[in-house]
Order: sequence, then structure tokens, then C-alpha cells
Amino acid sequence: MLPIKWRPNKHSSMPLYLQIKEYLRRKIELGEWTVGSRIPAQRELAKAFGVNRSTIVTAIQELVAEGLLEGQGRKGTIVINNSWSLLQAKQPPDWINYVQTGIYYPNLPTIQQINQMEFQQQMIRLGTGELAPHLFPHQKLGQILKDLSKSSLTWGYAEPKGLLYLREQISNYLRSFGIHASPASILIVSGALQALQLISLGLLKQEETILVEKPSYLQSLHLFSSMNIHLIGLPMDQEGIQTEKIASLTQNDQASLLYTIPSFHNPTGILMSDRRRMDLLKRCANIGLPIIEDDVYRELWLDEPTPVPLKARDQTGLVLYIGSMSKIVSPGLRIGWIVGPEPVIERLADIKMQTDYGASSLSQWVVAKWLASGEHLSHTEFVRSILRQKRDITLSLLQQEFSNLAKWTQPQGGFYIWLKLCSAISIKKLFNEASKQGILLNPGYIYDPLESNALRLSFSYASMDELQVGIKRLAQLVRKLK
Amino acid sequence: MLPIKWRPNKHSSMPLYLQIKEYLRRKIELGEWTVGSRIPAQRELAKAFGVNRSTIVTAIQELVAEGLLEGQGRKGTIVINNSWSLLQAKQPPDWINYVQTGIYYPNLPTIQQINQMEFQQQMIRLGTGELAPHLFPHQKLGQILKDLSKSSLTWGYAEPKGLLYLREQISNYLRSFGIHASPASILIVSGALQALQLISLGLLKQEETILVEKPSYLQSLHLFSSMNIHLIGLPMDQEGIQTEKIASLTQNDQASLLYTIPSFHNPTGILMSDRRRMDLLKRCANIGLPIIEDDVYRELWLDEPTPVPLKARDQTGLVLYIGSMSKIVSPGLRIGWIVGPEPVIERLADIKMQTDYGASSLSQWVVAKWLASGEHLSHTEFVRSILRQKRDITLSLLQQEFSNLAKWTQPQGGFYIWLKLCSAISIKKLFNEASKQGILLNPGYIYDPLESNALRLSFSYASMDELQVGIKRLAQLVRKLK
Ligand SMILES: Cc1ncc(COP(=O)(O)O)c(C=O)c1O
Ligand SMILES: Cc1ncc(COP(=O)(O)O)c(C=O)c1O
Repeated sequence: MLPIKWRPNKHSSMPLYLQIKEYLRRKIELGEWTVGSRIPAQRELAKAFGVNRSTIVTAIQELVAEGLLEGQGRKGTIVINNSWSLLQAKQPPDWINYVQTGIYYPNLPTIQQINQMEFQQQMIRLGTGELAPHLFPHQKLGQILKDLSKSSLTWGYAEPKGLLYLREQISNYLRSFGIHASPASILIVSGALQALQLISLGLLKQEETILVEKPSYLQSLHLFSSMNIHLIGLPMDQEGIQTEKIASLTQNDQASLLYTIPSFHNPTGILMSDRRRMDLLKRCANIGLPIIEDDVYRELWLDEPTPVPLKARDQTGLVLYIGSMSKIVSPGLRIGWIVGPEPVIERLADIKMQTDYGASSLSQWVVAKWLASGEHLSHTEFVRSILRQKRDITLSLLQQEFSNLAKWTQPQGGFYIWLKLCSAISIKKLFNEASKQGILLNPGYIYDPLESNALRLSFSYASMDELQVGIKRLAQLVRKLK
Repeated sequence: MLPIKWRPNKHSSMPLYLQIKEYLRRKIELGEWTVGSRIPAQRELAKAFGVNRSTIVTAIQELVAEGLLEGQGRKGTIVINNSWSLLQAKQPPDWINYVQTGIYYPNLPTIQQINQMEFQQQMIRLGTGELAPHLFPHQKLGQILKDLSKSSLTWGYAEPKGLLYLREQISNYLRSFGIHASPASILIVSGALQALQLISLGLLKQEETILVEKPSYLQSLHLFSSMNIHLIGLPMDQEGIQTEKIASLTQNDQASLLYTIPSFHNPTGILMSDRRRMDLLKRCANIGLPIIEDDVYRELWLDEPTPVPLKARDQTGLVLYIGSMSKIVSPGLRIGWIVGPEPVIERLADIKMQTDYGASSLSQWVVAKWLASGEHLSHTEFVRSILRQKRDITLSLLQQEFSNLAKWTQPQGGFYIWLKLCSAISIKKLFNEASKQGILLNPGYIYDPLESNALRLSFSYASMDELQVGIKRLAQLVRKLK
């Protein structure tokens, strides 16, 4: 659990408790554990160091006696001083205060836990929004690296909008979905998430409102709320977001953007029908309400090709279109794009320059060569064939295990199934219990703060075996907590 | 100048003006040029398309007649409609309003111009903060790519703090400057600039103040002012930032951080002496004022090894230490790091996860392998030897050309020389005139809004020949404008 890799040396002549005491003292003296912070629980330290809890207790007692630590009952053990400050009576900075008052809200505790636990071995990840590692095109990407190693790459800072060669490739690629966008109207970003951050910092002012699906991936991010921008959720049905209320919600300048994930929605898996797409576009065009179309799952259709993007029918520059390499080729490359009217793209490019001076040139080259290689199509077919099997298995496992316990969506693509439990149990408790049993879940309240009874399941990451074991164990847990 | 790559086909049977008209119409219909935006000047279009200005005039006249464009005298030609909206009477979104009211301030117009002009061929770049492309270790980086192409890389999302293997390498590397930091107290970022953004969003609240050197790189960024955080500049002398006023400026909670670039300061090139470093650290420790030590130029010493970092003497977690691969290996990789107390690093990692889910894994692998390869030391020696020659040449050219025109700093390392002109001329005019003559400058007001008479010169990018031509031409210009 703890990110501590050090362990005491059992063959040393120095007693274990003393080694540990010196290790802890060092952490404090170097300022890595600052005055005012809580050190990890004794139980966790014992586990991390591979020693008995009594050894930890002895080490801590000595540091308490020396005035570095203080036990504060249920609050745990706190760093109250470090030897340097004891000697010199200096005032250490109050970092805890800085950490707590910064402008951005922290991630939900559940998301923080998930972000950590995803890197623990042997977890069965039933909620993860990522392909299983063996589905990335390792070999072809390796070949591209090899080719790039021989060519003369540009290792310097890149242009504000990103490598022109990559924007040209993306322009071609987008044409295959019916989107006509010149390279000048494309901005390369470090993943689709960054596109959303740039929009939050560049196009909106405080107290504005964004319409989103209810539930929505966007609710899992605090980018917008940290900037005092509000999200209003519109209900969904089988065909996607319900559009009737849009006009009334944009009166009095209440809503200034609509964010949608029309293709294989995160977290419900719902696909917006072609009819609904046209309806949505018409309504938004009528009132001049811009749309952010987050289309990162587009290519993962499993039954029938995805309807054309909103952007392909957009003739007034109403739609900002977001895409990414993450869900189909590799999220580690951190490459996505935004397509939109040039003044908007230029504004966002300027903010990108203030944020990180552009995405990794190396990643940009790899993606450009990948798209140019012509392998993309056969790779997506391969990924779809595997996902299709995994979806079918998952749905039949749910049928077996959950038919009396829950209702769920039947996704036509993407990664996700939205599972609503029939009886009210504490999802937080389910999450915690499941984690203890090695199953990592994504609770529904991440995507809709008012949703107390749902889970986002994903069939993209876990192996067939893991799906089998995991879903069975999950059903048992639900029955136990019911 | 224009980012237009299309040109009319001179061998087509369709008249040139009609081809151009159709091209412009398409830009408007696709929403890339939105209603309300100004199209490029006729002169620029003529140049971009390689036609006479009269051809442009004819094309535009027809679009005006059709109601798509409107000439507005000195304001230029504006898009007032697009055919789709003419037909259907829809209301296009008012993007210009969105672009103008977003939370982040735009970059200074001068910086926007520089960001664009840096990608024009044949510019002599006398201000650029980047190594010349031939100084990057192409061959060794190519070798690393080749090796990586054979190993099984992780192409998935990375851990919140960044690849552990890279943090271990950086931990080793930092030890060589006297900084002891465990991997858990290191956060990988997408370049040092992002470290500053994370700090602005994660550790400060509105209306707080940061002390900086006057002038400072930080003044060139609007990250902090966009969040209503203020910068106060402290004067510098030969030994670095002047420290006397710090205590009074932090009374009444005015200042909550001090940001410094102690090693080869951007933009002045000044190196903070060891004595001053100790003085600064003592004063800040006394009042518990945290320090951000931006040390991206540390390894570029030219005369004597750089004094130890503030962080190496920090025993209370007072210092957040920022480093980067950009100034010595490759800025295109976009890899930097922050070192600090664990609660701070965890907070910043959480914000990084909200910002872009981590830096490119591929770039992280390349940097880890680079540091592990042991080539870093000989590469830095090579870079230093070249920079030493370039600095010496530049100083002697200044001596020749500017001895009656300006005073300047004598850098002991890094990239920069701070040049103050003796007589007051308009630096903005100098910048514009120089640009026209193919010389790109970084005016001093970028780094200190009250500084009307200075330039940041850089000897890192331009070749010896370009330095010679550029500095001579610059002196002529200054004489002309005087
Ligand atoms: C709808 C949606 N948009 C954006 C993202 C972020 O993707 P990227 O890895 O490109 O930043 C995700 C990933 O979870 C997503 O589900
Ligand atoms: C002092 C200083 N800090 C940070 C940066 C940003 O560097 P990076 O490329 O690592 O984001 C620069 C680059 O100009 C700089 O001069």
C-alpha cells in the first residue's frame, strides 16, 4: 500500500527498530514529511517494512521522546518538529495550509483511491476506462520507434498548434468520419482531458453553466467547478441525451455550452441515435448554443458503424470536436486533438502555450507515423473483435449473476455498462469491501453526485478469467450487503 | 506569414479568382472562419496564394455581394454570415465573445508573435531560450528509441507521480547536486512550465502574492495573474536577488511564496552567489516563507561549477525544487520534475491527474533510459564547451558594436545576456523593425512590465554566423531609431 520501498536490513548489526527510527528521522529531517503532517499508521508501516508492529512502536516512542513526533489519539501520529528546527528554532512552512487552500479542488477521495489502486498488482479492475495492455499495438509502435530512431526528429519546442505533419494526418483521418477540417483548425493536446482543461480556462467565465448528460464523465472532473462553472445534468434515454429542456435552460444566459459524449457514452455506454443527433444539432443551432462533442470512443462500435459525428453536419462552427488516441491506440502517448473555428483554436493554442509549451514532440511523431502507416484500420478491427467477445461474456455473466440484483445497459460499443442495483446498499461500502477482496470498482456517484445505487462496469481491461471471477465475487458481496 | 498552405491551381480552367472565392467560401461554410471574425488582409492573402492583389479583390467583392463578407473600412473585412445561416436563418454562436471572456489571460501580443515567428524559416533568433537543434544528443536519443523499440514498454496510463523507474533515476541524478530526495517526493511533470501551473492551481489562493526577481521569467507568464495572484519584483545585484526587503513584504501575510531562478537567471543571466543563497535561505526559514527554486539552467555553468542548490541545504521542507530536461537534452520531450514535501507532491500529483493524466509515458521512458545510460555527463560537457564559445563571441561582438549604445551583463552560464540601451528608444518599434529584417528579439518588457529599455539576448540558438550578422544589424537599427 505505502509508497515506501526501503526495508530494514535484517542482517545488520544495528537493531531493526533503530534502523527504522533513523529512516523515519531522515524523512522528517529532509522535509519530505513536514511538520504538521500525519505519518502512516503503525500497522501500515509494519507491513511496508516487513517487521512486527512492536518494532514500529519502539521506534516511534523514541522519536516522540526526542520531540519530533506526537501521538494524537485517533488523529494518529503527527510530525511536530524536526531536529533542525529544534536546534535552531526556525519556523517551518505551513504546507498543509497551502495544500488545503489552493484554487483547484482535489479529486474525490474515491477517485484518488482508484488512481492509486490501479497501480497495485493483482487487482481485478472492473471499472477501468482503458484497454488491457495486450491490446495496444506493441509491435507496430515498436517498429515506428525503430524507424524514428533513424530519421532526424525535431527534439525542440513545437509550434503552438502542434506538429504540422501530425495535424495533416489528423485532418485526413477525420475525413474518414465526414469531418472536413484543415490543419489550421486543429489543435494537438496532451490527451482529451487537457482539451477540457483548456476550454475551462479559455472559453468560459465564472458562474456560467454547462449542460451535460446525467450521469457524465465530466462530473468526475473538478476542472470546471474549481473555476466556479456549474454543470447541469440532462436525463438520458436509449437514444442519448434528452433535448427538450435545452432551450429553457439557456434562457437568461444560464447555460453557455453543452457537453456531450454521443458515441458510447462514459459512464452509461449509450449510443446517441442519428435522429437524436440531428435533433440536438438543430436545437442548439437555433439558439446559438455551442456544443463540445467528446468523441473518444467513436471507433469502438461493436454492432454497427457509429453514426456520423455532430461535427460532420456542423456548418456554422457550432461544434468543438474532441478526439484522442487513448482509447484505441495508447493512452500513455497522451495525444488528443480539438477541432473548431480558427479563432477558438488559436485562443486554446495560446493557453496551451501557457500551460506546457505543447505536447511531447516524440509522442506527436509516433502518432503521425501511426496514422500515416495505414495500420490503424486493421488495428481497430482487431480491438473491436476482442471487445465484442468481452462485452458478450460480460453481459452473459451479468445475466447469470445479477438478474435479480440489478438492471444494466446493453452497450453497442465502447467500454462501459451502467449497472443499477435494485436494492439500496451503500456503494461506498461496496467499493471498500470489494477493494479488500482485490476488486476495483468505479462507483456511480463519481459520475452523478445524486446517484447512490449505480456502478460503472468496464469490460475493456479485465481478462475473461478476471471478468468471470470478479463479477461472481461482486454478486456475492452485493448479496451480503443487501 | 499566413498558415495557409493551399494555393490556386494556375493550370486549371477555373479562373484564379473563382478558385479563391470557393476556397474562402469553404473556410466560412465549414465554420473555420466564424461569423464576426476578420479575414486576413488582402495583401497577405495575395502573398499566401501567390496572386495579384486585384484577383483577391475580385473574389472578395463577390462574397460581399453574396452577403457573406462585409468591408468595414479600417477594421478590415469581416465574416457577417455563412450561406447555411443565410438559407436557414440560424443563429451562429458568438465565439468571439467566448474567446474574449475566458478566465486565463492571453499571452502578451509580443509573446504570441514570438511564438509564431519562431517557426518561420531564416529568422535569426537572438532571444530564443533553447539550444540550437544540432546540440541535442540526436544519436544517443536515436539509440535509446531503438532499444526501447525492442523492450516491452508500458503504453497505458501512468501512475499519478509518474513512472517509478524515472523517479528513481531522477533521485540518483539529484544526488549528484547534493539533493537527497526519495522517489515518493518527486513528481514528474510535462516540463517545468507545467510545474508552475500546478503550483498556481494547487497551492495558492486568490489575492496572494509571490516575490520574484525583477525582472523575471515568471512575469512573462500569465498563469498567476489569471488566478488573481500578484507578483512583486525584488531588485537584483551581481550576486542575485536582494534579500533585505523580504521580511517586511511578508508581514501581514502579503507574500506567501518566493520564486527564484538562482542559477543563470532568466532573463539576466545572473548567478546567485553561495553567500547570497545561504542568506536567502536563512531569511526565508526565519519567517517560514516557502521558496520555489527554478533550477533549469543549473548544469549550464561555463566558468565554475554552480553553487549547491538551495534545496540541498533545506532541512525543513521549505523549498520546492523544479528541474527540467529542456535546456540541456531536449525540450520536445516535455519532461521536468518537482521535488518537495510529500503532502505537497501528492497534492500536485492529484492536480496533474486532473489536468492531463500524466506526462507522455514514452517521453518518460526516454528520459529514464537517458539518465541511466551514463551519457548525461559527457553530453553536458559538450554543450558547455559550445556555449562557452558562443558566449565569448557574443560578448566580444557586443563590445565591438554596442559599447556606446548599451550596458550588459556578463553571464557565467546559461543562455542569456541582459542588454540595457543607454538612450530611450521604443523597444516595441525595435522589435517590429528587427522582425522585418529577419531578426527575432525578446524585449525586456516581457520580463518586467516597467522595463522600457532592455532586451534579453540569447547566445544559445543562433549560429556563430547568425550572431555576427544579427548583432551588427541590431546595432545599426538601434542607431537608426535613437
Ligand atoms: C469521455 C472521455 N473524454 C476524455 C477522456 C480522457 O481521455 P485522454 O486519455 O485522451 O485524456 C476520457 C477518458 O477516460 C473519457 O472517457
Ligand atoms: C526559468 C525557466 N523555468 C521554466 C522554463 C520552462 O521550461 P520547460 O521547457 O521545462 O517547461 C523556462 C523556459 O524558458 C525557464 O527559463
